[in-house]
Order: sequence, then C-alpha cells, then structure tokens
Amino acid sequence: MGTRVAVAGASGYAGGELLRLLAGHPDLEITAVSAGSSAGKPITSIHPNLVGHPAFDGVNFAATDAATLGEAELIFMALPHGESAKLADALPQARIVDLSADFRLGDAETWHKFYGADVAHAGRWAYGLPELPGAKENIRQARTVAAPGCYATTSILALAPLLAAGLAEPDDIVIVAASGTSGAGRSLRTDLLASEVMGSMSAYKVGGTHRHTPEIEQALSEASGLEVTLSFTPTLAPMPRGILATCTAKLTKAATASADPGQALRDALGAAYSTSPFVHLLPDGQWPATAAVYGSNGAHVQAAADLHAGRAVVISTTDNLGKGAAGQAVQLANLMLGLPETAGLTTHGVAP
Amino acid sequence: MGTRVAVAGASGYAGGELLRLLAGHPDLEITAVSAGSSAGKPITSIHPNLVGHPAFDGVNFAATDAATLGEAELIFMALPHGESAKLADALPQARIVDLSADFRLGDAETWHKFYGADVAHAGRWAYGLPELPGAKENIRQARTVAAPGCYATTSILALAPLLAAGLAEPDDIVIVAASGTSGAGRSLRTDLLASEVMGSMSAYKVGGTHRHTPEIEQALSEASGLEVTLSFTPTLAPMPRGILATCTAKLTKAATASADPGQALRDALGAAYSTSPFVHLLPDGQWPATAAVYGSNGAHVQAAADLHAGRAVVISTTDNLGKGAAGQAVQLANLMLGLPETAGLTTHGVAP
Amino acid sequence: MGTRVAVAGASGYAGGELLRLLAGHPDLEITAVSAGSSAGKPITSIHPNLVGHPAFDGVNFAATDAATLGEAELIFMALPHGESAKLADALPQARIVDLSADFRLGDAETWHKFYGADVAHAGRWAYGLPELPGAKENIRQARTVAAPGCYATTSILALAPLLAAGLAEPDDIVIVAASGTSGAGRSLRTDLLASEVMGSMSAYKVGGTHRHTPEIEQALSEASGLEVTLSFTPTLAPMPRGILATCTAKLTKAATASADPGQALRDALGAAYSTSPFVHLLPDGQWPATAAVYGSNGAHVQAAADLHAGRAVVISTTDNLGKGAAGQAVQLANLMLGLPETAGLTTHGVAP
Amino acid sequence: MGTRVAVAGASGYAGGELLRLLAGHPDLEITAVSAGSSAGKPITSIHPNLVGHPAFDGVNFAATDAATLGEAELIFMALPHGESAKLADALPQARIVDLSADFRLGDAETWHKFYGADVAHAGRWAYGLPELPGAKENIRQARTVAAPGCYATTSILALAPLLAAGLAEPDDIVIVAASGTSGAGRSLRTDLLASEVMGSMSAYKVGGTHRHTPEIEQALSEASGLEVTLSFTPTLAPMPRGILATCTAKLTKAATASADPGQALRDALGAAYSTSPFVHLLPDGQWPATAAVYGSNGAHVQAAADLHAGRAVVISTTDNLGKGAAGQAVQLANLMLGLPETAGLTTHGVAP
Repeated sequence: MGTRVAVAGASGYAGGELLRLLAGHPDLEITAVSAGSSAGKPITSIHPNLVGHPAFDGVNFAATDAATLGEAELIFMALPHGESAKLADALPQARIVDLSADFRLGDAETWHKFYGADVAHAGRWAYGLPELPGAKENIRQARTVAAPGCYATTSILALAPLLAAGLAEPDDIVIVAASGTSGAGRSLRTDLLASEVMGSMSAYKVGGTHRHTPEIEQALSEASGLEVTLSFTPTLAPMPRGILATCTAKLTKAATASADPGQALRDALGAAYSTSPFVHLLPDGQWPATAAVYGSNGAHVQAAADLHAGRAVVISTTDNLGKGAAGQAVQLANLMLGLPETAGLTTHGVAP
Repeated sequence: MGTRVAVAGASGYAGGELLRLLAGHPDLEITAVSAGSSAGKPITSIHPNLVGHPAFDGVNFAATDAATLGEAELIFMALPHGESAKLADALPQARIVDLSADFRLGDAETWHKFYGADVAHAGRWAYGLPELPGAKENIRQARTVAAPGCYATTSILALAPLLAAGLAEPDDIVIVAASGTSGAGRSLRTDLLASEVMGSMSAYKVGGTHRHTPEIEQALSEASGLEVTLSFTPTLAPMPRGILATCTAKLTKAATASADPGQALRDALGAAYSTSPFVHLLPDGQWPATAAVYGSNGAHVQAAADLHAGRAVVISTTDNLGKGAAGQAVQLANLMLGLPETAGLTTHGVAP
Repeated sequence: MGTRVAVAGASGYAGGELLRLLAGHPDLEITAVSAGSSAGKPITSIHPNLVGHPAFDGVNFAATDAATLGEAELIFMALPHGESAKLADALPQARIVDLSADFRLGDAETWHKFYGADVAHAGRWAYGLPELPGAKENIRQARTVAAPGCYATTSILALAPLLAAGLAEPDDIVIVAASGTSGAGRSLRTDLLASEVMGSMSAYKVGGTHRHTPEIEQALSEASGLEVTLSFTPTLAPMPRGILATCTAKLTKAATASADPGQALRDALGAAYSTSPFVHLLPDGQWPATAAVYGSNGAHVQAAADLHAGRAVVISTTDNLGKGAAGQAVQLANLMLGLPETAGLTTHGVAP
Repeated sequence: MGTRVAVAGASGYAGGELLRLLAGHPDLEITAVSAGSSAGKPITSIHPNLVGHPAFDGVNFAATDAATLGEAELIFMALPHGESAKLADALPQARIVDLSADFRLGDAETWHKFYGADVAHAGRWAYGLPELPGAKENIRQARTVAAPGCYATTSILALAPLLAAGLAEPDDIVIVAASGTSGAGRSLRTDLLASEVMGSMSAYKVGGTHRHTPEIEQALSEASGLEVTLSFTPTLAPMPRGILATCTAKLTKAATASADPGQALRDALGAAYSTSPFVHLLPDGQWPATAAVYGSNGAHVQAAADLHAGRAVVISTTDNLGKGAAGQAVQLANLMLGLPETAGLTTHGVAP
C-alpha cells in the first residue's frame, strides 16, 4: 500500500495528467478523485486514456470538498485560481501541492494587478521549482508547496543559471514562448476550437499582461539577488502540449570578455543541471524540440551567444502538463514524502 | 541486473520506441543498440527524447552484426523486411522478437505476391498477437516470435471475436484504416514531409495491395476456422502516431436474430478481452480516439450493428508504435522471458 | 454592380467561407450579412481573415430576418437545420440556396428518423449537385435549391458514375470518410477542442446513424435507377478542412469480366467528369489528398479494382467548406443566375 | 492574351504557389514552367492541386535555361541561392522578379558571412517590399527586383513604421518568429518529416545566424536612417504555412511620454498602412493569427506598449508563401508591368 493521495480538480487537463502519472506511480495510491461541474460523471468518460485501471473504471468524480479529500496524506489541487486558497483553508493540516497561482506571488499589489482586485491575496507558499538553488531542502520540509506555472518553469530554468553566473544582465530580458493548447485548459472557448487552432499560430496577452510575468521576475530576482525586469510574450501553437521558450538577455561584460561566450553560457547551464534527473543541457549543436519531452517530466535547454546583438539566447522546452504542471507536482510530492525524486516519473518524452 | 536485451535497427521509429520502453522497464537491461547507416552516430542525436539515460548519453549506435547482438538473451529486430531473415540465420540460438514481416506469412506464394519475387520466403514463426485464443501459451514457449503489423494488430483485435462468435460473415469484410505517419518509418520521402502531410488526409496502396492484407486474412482465418476475404484500404492521417480502423463485416443471421444485435457484438468483444490488461471495450456510447492510447500498449474497441446495411461496424484503435509495434514486442518479450506480461508497459495513453 | 446577394447565418464556418468567396466574386455584390446570436458583433471579430474589405470592415452582423435579407436577389442560407425552413417560408419569392438539410430529403419518414420527430418535414427542393446527370438544367430553372451535405457530395461524386455504368452493385456499399473539424461547425463542444483533436483520429455516429446516410442513398438511387443500400461511417481527422472518402462497392459481373476492371472504373469516372471544371479524375497512379483541394471548389477522384475482394474502391476528396458547402453554393448561384459556372471559384487548392 | 510570364524553379513550394496564383491571374499568361531535377516530370505529379488547368494538365516541367525562359516578358525566379545570379546573367534584358537572396544584400562582406565564401556576391537589385516608403515608385521603374525573405517581410512590416515615427529605439531589437514548414522548402531532411514536426515546436539557427538577420537590419536601417541592430531567432511550428513574428524594441522617450503609448504605436502602424490593400492593422484588442492570412497576400499587425519592460511589442503575420514569397512576387510583377497592384491577389486568408 502506497501513500494515500487525492486529486482535487481532476477533470481538467492537469488533473487528468496527474491521474495518469499516479496510476503508474509505485509508491502512491489514489484515494479520492474530485471535480467541480463534472462531479458525478464517470472519470473515463472525460479521460478515456485512463480506461483499464481499477481506480477509474466505473468510478465517478467525487465532489471537491474537504471531508473527502482530507482522508489523503497528500492532496494535489488542480483548481481554478481563487478556489485553491478556499479549499486550503479547510485543510489546515494536510500536505498540499497546489497547481494554481494562488500561493505563488509574495507581493499583494502585484497579485491584484495581475489576478484582479476581487480575489484576495492568499499569501505565499514554498515555491516548488526543485532545480533552483536551495529549493529542494525547502520543499522537503514544507507542508504546502506552490507548483510554478508552465511558462514560468520553462523560462526560469533557462535563465536562472546565467543570471547567477553573472553572464546575463537582469534588466532587459525578453522572453517569447509558444505553448500547446492544453496550457489553456479544457475551457469551451472559440479560440481553442480545433478548427481555429490547427494550422495557425497566434499571440495573446501581449504587452506584459500575462500572469506568469511577475512570477518569472520574482523567481529570477530571488535566485540571482538582482532586480529582474522582463518582457514576456506568449503565443499559442498548433499542438496539444509543449512549451518552447526563447529567452534572451543582454550579455554582461564578463560574458563577452570570455574566450568563448557561447561555451560560457553552456557551461553555466551544464553546471546547474549536471546532477538533475530531469533538466538536461543538450549536446552542442542540438536545439530543443517540444516533442522530445512530450508526456515526460523532462526539460531541455541549449544556449548561444549572439555577439553582434550582444545577447544570450537560451532555448528551453518542457511539456506544459509534465514539468510544467502535473509531472512537477509529482516530483514535489516525492520530495515532500521522502520518496525518490524520480518515482513514477520519466525524463524521456514520447517521440516522434 | 535485468535480463540482457539488444535492439537491432534502433535508429528507426519502432526501434526508438523500443529504447524508450526498455529504458523504463524494471526487468530488462539494454546491452546493445545497433543501426545500419546510422551506426557510429550518437543515439541521442537521432532520439533526443532519450537524453538523460546512461545507456544512451554519449553512446553511439553499434553496427548491426550477430557478434555484438548475440551477447543478449533476447534480441528485438526492427529491421527492414528481408534483413531480419538474414540476421536471424546468424543467430540460431537467440531468443528473437522480430518486428518485420519476414516471418509472419505461412504461404510462400502470398509472400512473393506482396513482398516481391526477390526476397526469399523465410518461413513462419509463432505469430505474436497474445490476445488471440491460445496464442499466449504458444508465445511463451517459442524461441522466435513474429510481431504482427500495426494495421494487422488493430484490425484483428476488432474482428476476431465477432468471427469466432459467429456474429460476422467472413467473406466480405471491409476495413478502412487511418494511420499516423510514423507507421511509414523515418524514410526521406516527399509524401512524408510535414508540409505535405499536415492538414491533409490521403489514401495509398488502394485496391488490396497493402502488405498487411494477407496477414489479416491469415490470422482471422486461423482464429475463426473460416476462410476470410477482405478489402483493406489504408489512409495517411496528419498525426505522428495512432491507427483508427473501421472494420465492417456482414452480420450473420445469428447476429440479426438476436434481441439486441449491437449488444451481442459488444458482448463478444467484452468477453474476449475481459481479462486483457491492454485491450479494452469502451463503455457503451464512447467511440475510440487514437489519442487515448498515444504512447501506450493499449487498444480500444467499440461496436455497433447497422441493421439497415446489414453490417457490424467495429472501431478499433492502437498506437502504431505501441501495441502496433514496440509495445507489443515488449509484451511478447515479457511472455517469452516469464516476466509479468505488463512489465514496463502501460495501457494509459498520453492525452490530451 | 453585381447581382445583390445576402448570406443568412454568416457567423459560422460555411457562412464565413461564403463571405470569403463572395468578396472575390466578379458578378455578385454582398448586400446583407446576418447572424443569430452574433448579430451586432463586428464581422471581422469572428472572421479576421476578412479584414480589408469594405463590406466587412467596421460592419456588424445584422439579425437574420426576412425584411433585411429580402432585398437581395439571391439568398444563401447557412442556418442550423430547422431554421432554414422557417426563414424560407417568409421569403416566398426569393431565389434561395440552402446549405442546411431541411430541403434535401423527399421521404418524410426518413427525415424524422434522422432529424427527429420535432422538426417538421419541409419537403424537397431541387438537389444541388450539378455534376449529376441532368442536374444542371434542373438547377438553372429552380427558384430554390438544396445544396448537398459535404459527405454526401464527396461520396456521390465517387460512386454515381460506377452505378450508372453498371460496374458496381448497389446493395452492399461501404463508405468510410474522414472529415476535418470545420464540418462540425463552430460549436463549443469539448470533443472539438484543439487539445482533444490534434494528433487524434476518432469515430462518431457509427452504425448507420449519420444524417448524410439517407441523402447519399437517395441521390445514388435516383441517379442509377437502382435501390442503393450502404454502410456509412464518418471519422474526425486532425485537420481544419477536407473530406477523404473511401467508397467501396462490389464489382458487377460486367466489371470483373472486362479486360482491365480497374481501367473500366477509371474510364467511367473519366467520362462522367470529362467536361467538369471542378471534378477531376487524377492521373493513373495518383491518389487523392485533401490538401490538393483545400480552399477550392475542386473534387478529386481515383479508383482501383480489388479482384481478390471483389470490390471497387473509389477515393474521393473535397474541401468540406468548398465543394462540400460554400463553394458548391456559389456554383449553384452561378447556375441559377445565368452566370458562368466557374465565376468566383477555383479548382486549385491551397497546397502545401 | 495576357502578358507572357515564366516561372523558373517551379517544382518547389514557392514556385508551386506562383503557378497557383498565376493560374488565376486575369492579366498574366504562363508560357514556361521550368524545374531543375524535376525537369521532364508532369507538373501535376508534384503539384496535384493544379490539376484541371490547360497550362499544367499533361504538361511536364521544362529544364531551366535562358532560351526557354527568355520568351517571357517577365520571369519569376524561385531558384536556390546562387543559381539565380547565374541565370540572371544569361537574361540581361528580361524583367525579373527574383525570390532568392542573391540580390538582396548590398554589403559583400555581410553576404559572405551569411551565405558563404564560395558564392560570389552578385550585387543588389531594387528591394521589393512595396509598403516601404518610396519603394513602389522604385519598383515600378526597375527591370529587376529582389523579393524579400519571408521572415524579413514579416519583421520589417512590423517595425519600420515605429522606427520612422521615432517610437522605437533601433539598437536592441529582439525578434522571435515562428514559421510553418513550407518556409524550409521541399527538401528531404529528417527534421522536416511530418513525424518529427507534428506536435512539436523547435528552434534553429539560434544566436543571430539566420540569413534574414542582415536583410532585416539593412531594410530597417535604410527605412529609418538609423543604425539598426537586432537579435533574431527563428522557430519551426507544426503547420504548413504562416509566419508569426513577435517584434520588440525599446520604447523611445517620445513614446513613453505620449498620453497613450500603446495607441501611439497603433497610430503609427495605422498611418503607414492606411491605404495598403494588403497590410492591415487589426482592430484594437485583436491579435494576429497566421490562419487569417493563409493562402493570401495579406499581412496583419497589432501592437502594445509594455511600460514595465519599456518595450514596444508588435505582432505581425504573413503567409510565408504568400506575402512572404509568391504573393509578393506577383504584387511586384503587377507594379513592374503597370497592372493594378492587386491583380490576381487577395488579402483574405483561407480560414478556418
């Protein structure tokens, strides 16, 4: 018998991916699967990929309430922003990994600027990006952890080592990222219809308005001790999963003065992730493709120095539902529960 | 230490999927990874999704020869048709799972009609579709097993139970199947370029000329004791993986005379796969989608009776690289080696 | 000044395609563009591809009512089934091309079986498939014409010439067709979300329940003078547009007795469409791909005889919004108005 | 009878799109269609979308030589880089629109840096971006015109008006663009296979090495009179056509000092393209999507000011084969021949 875990908000894409990962986890046992408006519906009617597992076959989503979920030793919350904070209040002693934004931002003013005046700022939990320096110990000892956003994870992994190594300037970072559609969730929106998306790239939340912007700034500032400012533009790509982030920052004088600036960037990334089971600097000359981490908890990074433009360019990729959401949440649970960090996870994407 | 296995022809898509599955297999250990024209190249330059595993990082493909491969206790051969038979001759004592067509057909004349006069008929090995009645015992005792084709697996799983139950006529079966592009391999052909395929469905090998046609007829005839004749049309779908087969056969009098012919079809499928860990009859009203088995060894089936047209219609789906190739090969190896049938495999597709 | 035309139901995909085609039509002038729930919204907010045209820039959808539409000399109705009949009643003297199913079926019982008991059978208009024998004259003289369904158009074009030529048996036809998602319209349904569709083929309306089934039977029966029965299975393909239909019928004795049955099939198709500007038999050896007719009013067909299975196999393709809907509607309007049949239309798809 | 035109290099994607556009052009007549290694093959075997036109049905590609092509009054050259210059030498008096890079760059050193030491710098022709200030008159009077690159067209259209209006700083521009696969041509490369591309975004030519980088810098510098430096990163998107460029530049003091910096950006774009038939500033709040210009000669732009990051962000989109290649080439030919600029072209994309 494994540790008992529950998934709140399991009818969405991140919740479904959590169920898929937990179904194959050697040390965790699913004891509650809840949903909001889909409560009462068969789990496999919404997630037909889960057919053939005793925890799902013939089982309906439970309603999301503290009583049902509280039986578990650890609860994954994959709820809309605002709802996580409410449920967490009703579960004051449970271990929780929260996939929403509710507990990511420390600054109340920033919270209200990006998430509206209506939703109270809930405070801040341990930030669950284990690859950041010192983060793992912090996560291991936390009762509650906020899993980072998908764009945030992908961008921070690319840039934190360069800032820490003094190779990139913190004050004019430009990030342009493409995401698969599952990042927008299972919402019934016209712009997410297959007919609109297939064969089409589009931009949205342009001009620094995407909610992951302050999260990336906060994490990079804390990791580097510098005040980080950045321009972030998300785009929607015609694929179900995957994020490809193009992260550029001005090269510092230290970087341009090095014998091989591009190699210096690569060395910093390589050193930062040399022991990571999930984040990998690709061999020289290979550039990331989202397919290589599809369905996995892996992240790939690669860098080049553009001396003409004076910029470092780091390309990073994750699966937005994997390392960008559910995979990372399982990684966090593993750390919190003292399990092997890689239990139930893989770094190998399903490709082609 | 697990059982030592080797993969010959590991630079292709089926070979790459074998490596991915073997990397996560608890009981098997990869001891040789060989290729043809890619011998000497880094494994991860062709399969970047495999970065981060000691058997692949910094390792080059070996050349495909009997000496290297013969060290393994079981060899997966994912070679072009014709080459498997040659290599097998040089490995007279090894356990082999062959993913090519070389050892699938019993009839030499049929072989030559579909595979050309040039390639000698190599004879026939145990046919590796474990869900066919009696097949598992046969596979467990075989030294060499021929893994079925992807279209064949998907079609046979749909129709064999109906023929065996006397619900479908054997003499005018019509199958139309759509496959993702990885089924055609990693060949540099214009018609497989992304620009040509994306946004486009096309037909090929129309008129009973596809090589899986006699394989399906042979397996269904043997499973049912009837002489099966069928029309098979493959189409190419704009997706990397997945087969969706629409399999229709005339309803027998027994079928149309039953109180609920559609339910009779469903009952036959349900009974055939009630204990199968990989093949699943979907709940009534749910129709298969390839995404639900993406990256898995699962197969989904669902049926309806069309009394107006007098036909049973069964829809089945597999991942052509999963249950249609590499996943099934691992399942066969598990059986041959006395391991749990499901070791290293999942029935849960990566979706959405 | 061209002939004044109006589009009712212009916010959907077929309606939007009508606007696109009419914007480039040399002889027609758009005088009213109406919608249902989108009335009052800017046309280009829903159809951003139409930006840059005086009939659309800064113009909102009008409400769909007879007064507004009645100003036009010809009205295209792209409304949900059931609504067309109501609007037509209010426009007793206008020329109308209706893209709904309301006026396609002659048999009231069949209508109610497939469209429900609630919606009254509206009767039958001239059937607008100009390539059927004798159809063009009929359409030219009609005040109201029912444009065929997309699957129906694609299937009928494939099979009608073979039945008429006595090469195919009418009583056990099997059609399996794949459609792009725009065929399902702009509906907010979970199964039409990009995340669900991309990378996935699925089946729906299996077992003879799709509404185009009786329409195809009616048209083929009338065209051939034979009683046609068929099994029709639609599938959803991960592409925005396009239908690929695999149409098989038993070869007649006349067909199998011919010196070259495959050529006999090709000859019948070639003769049927030798003067058609839109329907083309492909050169021998080339099989249809939907991309080749993308965005056009073209249709491609190709055939083979499978003597082993005793079946003719015809592959046909159209753009479901082109020859399958809006393109054909414009072709019908051209005929009704005495314009050149090809005015404003092309047979050349946008490819790759 | 229209003006006689020829297409050299018509077997590729840009060449095929030229043929498609020319087939529908009211004032141009195709007199020669040539190819390199495909010479002698039927045109419609490579471009099945062109079936049904007398200039293509049953016609083979001619070989690319000056004698055949020289009969035309205007020649489109869609040849590999380096070959255009050679052919142009042999056609000293013909009007030519060249789609290669051979005649785009004025600086020989830059040419050799990006195109290699082997290919001689051929000099510079009139730069064929008609929407740049003063460009149209220049093009009308030129005998030979170099059509811009696809990324270059899309990026320059986005940024030139802001630089000219003094709203954007020229010295730290960052452009990240996603392109459909047809931009890479019909090359048989593994990374362009459908299996590799579908469901995957990837980066390439990172670090300022893409050949369109100096072309964009040259055009923007000339258009603004400033010295422009930029970081350009291209990415490959899973779609056949379309470019989406995210173009960011530091806001000038004039921009940040304006009452509404975002509106100032929009005003500059709106003024630049107010009379353009092809380039459109979208209504406020709508962001470009590549599908809206699919198959057309249109370009869409939209802008926002990010005051926190101090950057203007302009999103622009074109069809890389349309306004990015063949469409623009036809527009150039129209200007050179004194035809209406829009003849044979549309700004309305095929969508959805």
